[in-house]
Amino acid sequence: MSTTDLNLWSDTATRAKIIDLVEAVTDESGPDYLLPSERIATFDNDGTLWCEQPLQVQFFYVIDKIEEIAKTNPEMKETQPFKAFLEKDHKTISTFSKKELMEFIFTAMGEKTPEELASAVKNWFDTAKNPKFNFSYYDCAFKPQIELLNYLRKNDFRIFIVSGGGVEFMRVISEKIYGIPTERVIGSSVKTKIVMDGTVPVINRLKELGNFDDREEKILNIHLHIGKRPVLAFGNSDGDLAMLRYALAGKGKKLSLLLHHDDAEREVAYDRDFKISPLNEALDVAAAEGIQVVSMKNDWTVVF
Amino acid sequence: MSTTDLNLWSDTATRAKIIDLVEAVTDESGPDYLLPSERIATFDNDGTLWCEQPLQVQFFYVIDKIEEIAKTNPEMKETQPFKAFLEKDHKTISTFSKKELMEFIFTAMGEKTPEELASAVKNWFDTAKNPKFNFSYYDCAFKPQIELLNYLRKNDFRIFIVSGGGVEFMRVISEKIYGIPTERVIGSSVKTKIVMDGTVPVINRLKELGNFDDREEKILNIHLHIGKRPVLAFGNSDGDLAMLRYALAGKGKKLSLLLHHDDAEREVAYDRDFKISPLNEALDVAAAEGIQVVSMKNDWTVVF
Repeated sequence: MSTTDLNLWSDTATRAKIIDLVEAVTDESGPDYLLPSERIATFDNDGTLWCEQPLQVQFFYVIDKIEEIAKTNPEMKETQPFKAFLEKDHKTISTFSKKELMEFIFTAMGEKTPEELASAVKNWFDTAKNPKFNFSYYDCAFKPQIELLNYLRKNDFRIFIVSGGGVEFMRVISEKIYGIPTERVIGSSVKTKIVMDGTVPVINRLKELGNFDDREEKILNIHLHIGKRPVLAFGNSDGDLAMLRYALAGKGKKLSLLLHHDDAEREVAYDRDFKISPLNEALDVAAAEGIQVVSMKNDWTVVF
Repeated sequence: MSTTDLNLWSDTATRAKIIDLVEAVTDESGPDYLLPSERIATFDNDGTLWCEQPLQVQFFYVIDKIEEIAKTNPEMKETQPFKAFLEKDHKTISTFSKKELMEFIFTAMGEKTPEELASAVKNWFDTAKNPKFNFSYYDCAFKPQIELLNYLRKNDFRIFIVSGGGVEFMRVISEKIYGIPTERVIGSSVKTKIVMDGTVPVINRLKELGNFDDREEKILNIHLHIGKRPVLAFGNSDGDLAMLRYALAGKGKKLSLLLHHDDAEREVAYDRDFKISPLNEALDVAAAEGIQVVSMKNDWTVVF
């Protein structure tokens, strides 16, 4: 390993395990060697690759768009969680589960075509800022994770995002922030249909959640989209536990990592009480099941 | 272009158009230049990349497995198309649409886990032979197409299979035959669910067609899996027309190709009357819509 790899990771057991896995699967003479095509790594996004506090990035996008959305959905304005978004009431928004919020987003949002949505999201990213940290969402990714992605890529891993976040939302920024191309982003999706404009087929986004990519669904989507079991999986909440277990249940050397946000000073300390996406069961079973808990405080030399 | 590129393609307008597209999108100083991440190519499989005569490869797999399948589905033995498969009655099988046949396959086949299916398919490929051509299905791919895939890859295209065939079936051989990794294979899929074995999540294949990747559905799946519009799309039947139109409707230089099986001597001449997967409407509209018809007879110097 070059001395410039994983410099933002403290010299701990976590870092050693990552390096151990990567060296094992790339050592052609060793028993754990894998062809590059088998070196699949899957990462959750919200709270794993980038900051999800005080709310997930996509929900801030909706807060900033909600006045516009309200114009086309006036009948929904007094319902929840619409009202909470209108009032920028983070606390009430946080009482809903991620699935309920995603269902709301997919039902309320107005963009009819993928191109319209991508353009609106791109424009927003170019100017919006996280209210807690006061920096661009482009800078919301965790630096040690970017370094880890680069280290894995250098070792010919194929890196996929597997997230409960909207797939069309993430794809706008996945290449720029993470160097992950759109075809390696798996996420929640809206139902779609084709409408013909003469002989031109146009994708129309329907106002309905199609697939919510969370918990067991992450495994089914990994199978559907990738067709191979990950060698390394990284998550941060109970929504990732199924994926972490799926990686570990494969043959050969594997590594599942669970980021614990225990760093109130540099980011936010939270786990069981974050109702949108709690870390509860996964934290309880991690040690017994061989899931490596990553301490933001102790394992990372920097956060942002 | 190197003189060794596309040697199996005759010096025709088709070959010139392919080269023209590739040179345009790779010319950094030209107006049509695309970053490698935008160089998406989508290929149908059955009848486009490999031979689908006298039946699609996957249906021969089912014929060879049908006695085994009959043991666990005795009540279905007198129904169609089960009976036709049992009697190896190609003619009756050919009276069903591809969707009806895929629905039958997904309902009747017994493999419970993806690993079991992949292993059974691999074992079959290692010994089975196409009854018409008497060679291994590994050799059923069209040589000029393999050459085209290599040419596109050399020019940093990202090549995807987008086929009505079963995704799990194709993934067993996609890397070996085409050099296309599993994560770039999109196809029809069975419904799945997770069953827990203690703390180990196991994917179970349900006996029900989930998604039939044909016609408009190909576009929706391209959007869901890739998130970008293809620059080059290649098909051979009406099931591909939507995808060919979708590619052409994008901005910038594009190419859609439609393989016409007009070579009774070297392969089979068929189009409108092949009921499983007819080429009818696409052939009628190709010229008017700028879809390039590829004549197997005139555009290819060899077939297998």
